[in-house]
Amino acid sequence: MNEFELISRYFKRDAPSARLGVGDDAAIVRPTPGCDLHMSVDMLVEGRHFFSDVAPRALGHKTLAVNLSDMAAMGARARWALLSIALPKANEAWVSEFAAGFFALADAHGVELIGGDTTGGPLTLSVTILGEAPSGQALRRDAAQAGDDIWVSGELGLGALAVRHRLGWLNVNDAELLAAATHKLEYPEPRLALGAAMLPLARAAADVSDGLLADLGHILAASGVAGEIWAEALPSHPLLEARRMEHIACLAAGGDDYELIFTAPPSRRADIEAAAQVCGCRVSRIGRTLAGKGCALLDAEGRAVKLDKEGYDHFG
Amino acid sequence: MNEFELISRYFKRDAPSARLGVGDDAAIVRPTPGCDLHMSVDMLVEGRHFFSDVAPRALGHKTLAVNLSDMAAMGARARWALLSIALPKANEAWVSEFAAGFFALADAHGVELIGGDTTGGPLTLSVTILGEAPSGQALRRDAAQAGDDIWVSGELGLGALAVRHRLGWLNVNDAELLAAATHKLEYPEPRLALGAAMLPLARAAADVSDGLLADLGHILAASGVAGEIWAEALPSHPLLEARRMEHIACLAAGGDDYELIFTAPPSRRADIEAAAQVCGCRVSRIGRTLAGKGCALLDAEGRAVKLDKEGYDHFG
Repeated sequence: MNEFELISRYFKRDAPSARLGVGDDAAIVRPTPGCDLHMSVDMLVEGRHFFSDVAPRALGHKTLAVNLSDMAAMGARARWALLSIALPKANEAWVSEFAAGFFALADAHGVELIGGDTTGGPLTLSVTILGEAPSGQALRRDAAQAGDDIWVSGELGLGALAVRHRLGWLNVNDAELLAAATHKLEYPEPRLALGAAMLPLARAAADVSDGLLADLGHILAASGVAGEIWAEALPSHPLLEARRMEHIACLAAGGDDYELIFTAPPSRRADIEAAAQVCGCRVSRIGRTLAGKGCALLDAEGRAVKLDKEGYDHFG
Repeated sequence: MNEFELISRYFKRDAPSARLGVGDDAAIVRPTPGCDLHMSVDMLVEGRHFFSDVAPRALGHKTLAVNLSDMAAMGARARWALLSIALPKANEAWVSEFAAGFFALADAHGVELIGGDTTGGPLTLSVTILGEAPSGQALRRDAAQAGDDIWVSGELGLGALAVRHRLGWLNVNDAELLAAATHKLEYPEPRLALGAAMLPLARAAADVSDGLLADLGHILAASGVAGEIWAEALPSHPLLEARRMEHIACLAAGGDDYELIFTAPPSRRADIEAAAQVCGCRVSRIGRTLAGKGCALLDAEGRAVKLDKEGYDHFG
């Protein structure tokens, strides 16, 4: 099966919302009047962003999920995706499973694959995601104000725990926790519904991919404010929360969470709780913004918690 | 210099036409009312799409050029780009030169870089290009009709000649020809002005990246017509045209041309010649479409020319 047959068989699907989908020099869509177009790209490299033996179905899910997470962080509705794959060889079974994972998530969120590129090469995946939001509305990183609450969705630290267990840096000897952590690492759920629900309520947002403190740091720096995070308030799996200070680096700086971190005025607390409940998504108030710069992670007694590393730098 | 500093220093530039450029979870643009959005992605892998020792400035040019060529093939105006790079290490000198080549071409065509991703990994580049054209207008591959002229822009075969010389498959012993071939391989010029000028004149178009016959084949198959190409009419460098039948595989099936191939009714010949002249771009009428399927390459006596290989298949 050659390159063109492979693309045609597994990636050329109906894209009813597109004027022209996979198969021409470019795809064509007609943007929704009154909306801005949001777009983002993420590249995943074997051995860096995923383990070489990851199930291709899980990889298909995650490749799209990390991009949808960017749309969620803008409060945008995800619409269209383009997928580039470099593959060592045209392995049909692998591509079939990868496509199954990719499209299951795409279908769940009404996202259509409208283009891409397939080539030989070291296993590398790059998705471009396009979304729409009403003109002028977006959860930008630079919109936080001093005195905002800081919120985070879902549970933190699980993906990082799974990675560290796999690398032998620590040993997770609780099977339930390990299963939850592995699932979170392989099948992160992009928070699209929550992001859209926060569009009228929150001020600034980002998705947590490099670690909570690193991604919050981008919001704080862009907005020109400082922040404090309460270690005791960081949400996680009950079995991880019980040992939170032992694993605080995973919770606060672990990466691979794909949760939303956002700031909002305290006057919005009840609305945020209610909207999150409608979305079926846990949200936790984990800190606040302040005048100044930098970010402190505080323990229950208000003392600064020191971490070795606040996030992931791909060349660090 | 870490990942974020590297991005900020070399790739974060003003993007006046964007509502939000590099640095947030997504970029935001406001589509032009009355236009469709055209988008495409191409991935370049070291050792497959470029030689490992290519000058980074040339690579920056080519990485964008091959994507702009897709916009040209649609007749769209290129507007915005997103760039993903996997790099073995954060080599500042390399990135600086790459960015210089990329932005020189972007600036020449009014294209703004509004987002991207940088990671460690085997050298891989992926650009997503977005363009606009008036709603409902596009040079689609499926729009050719039997009886159309087949046209191609510029000169064919030079890029392929440079690759084959470099690989030792043949020896180009004319320095002028080798210099022209190498320049064409490293600095292809996307035919954006010509594509836009052909939007009201041509029917179907594609860009020639995998080889003339392969890319024409996609037009013919999508349109449900056959084609014949006249070997004697294929345009190239004068020194290559003089030995055209010796190098017919380069001209007709070599790849790396990044010229436009398009079909148009014979009634448009004068308009096409005139519009191409305004663009300063050579165009050549090289064949015609017919009822049926398949494509014949004919010599001056009307006999079929046989080639070993009609195009490039990344897993072939």
